[in-house]
Amino acid sequence: MLILGIDPGTAIMGYGLIEKKGQKLTPVAYSCWRTPSDLPMPRRLLQLYDSLEDFLLKYSPEVIAVEELFFNRNTTTALSVGQARGVVLLSGAKNKIEVFEYTPLQVKQAVVGYGKADKKQIQYMVKALLSLQESPKPDDTADALAVAICHAHSMGQGFGGLSK
Amino acid sequence: MLILGIDPGTAIMGYGLIEKKGQKLTPVAYSCWRTPSDLPMPRRLLQLYDSLEDFLLKYSPEVIAVEELFFNRNTTTALSVGQARGVVLLSGAKNKIEVFEYTPLQVKQAVVGYGKADKKQIQYMVKALLSLQESPKPDDTADALAVAICHAHSMGQGFGGLSK
Repeated sequence: MLILGIDPGTAIMGYGLIEKKGQKLTPVAYSCWRTPSDLPMPRRLLQLYDSLEDFLLKYSPEVIAVEELFFNRNTTTALSVGQARGVVLLSGAKNKIEVFEYTPLQVKQAVVGYGKADKKQIQYMVKALLSLQESPKPDDTADALAVAICHAHSMGQGFGGLSK
Repeated sequence: MLILGIDPGTAIMGYGLIEKKGQKLTPVAYSCWRTPSDLPMPRRLLQLYDSLEDFLLKYSPEVIAVEELFFNRNTTTALSVGQARGVVLLSGAKNKIEVFEYTPLQVKQAVVGYGKADKKQIQYMVKALLSLQESPKPDDTADALAVAICHAHSMGQGFGGLSK
């Protein structure tokens, strides 16, 4: 099963595609899409949308996993993340791919086994769980892989859920 | 010139298309799109996207006008509005239609001439400026018409601007 984790953002959108076979997780493709800050927002969103559409066409993941919102961020950030997230959810629906959401706490518990894990610990465990040579960079890519791993570990365990 | 005003939301998205000929403004089509609350968010966004795409295909507006974010709302609302807004901006970019943004203050000043105008005053002035028989309902539709009127009044006056 191919699971695509996404960390949505308008300036930088992390993605991480992993394959789950039995209990084994293998990284397939992971990096991030960046958009130029001097481009108007509609064009930035279109670039992200096109990149994601190309990616979905190329790899045909069976599910997309994204993190739920961060309540502690400010409204401007929430609106901006929301716009990027809207593009991801829309693209999922257009391509008939189910989108699952996990809270940051669920992701940390699934990846590190500890709800208060910091960025470094997440990167370390993502590297270890996927047998990577190096920690995935930037954070956005590590976070995208982490939410994909979270989905892989959560399947059938009844936490997280379809995007509401 | 055809100007489409949009009031983005995931449960209800108001739209108002007006025609500007010289100083005269004429309403062309205005209402709102609603999505069922029991539908997963990706499907709701897809419904809104499809409705908007059909609308753009049918009427070919030259610009889209939306309100800038509301700073005083909470992050959950901002994220939800952001998702709907992302769909609107994306659809504009895909269809090569420029998207302009106006602050709530600019909209109120343009429509009512008073930055602290309330919903009732906006509805009243939208009705008067467009020679409507009745006030447009719901609020989302009135707000969408108001931002379209704001763009019509602002053209060449140097306020508001392309979506950033």
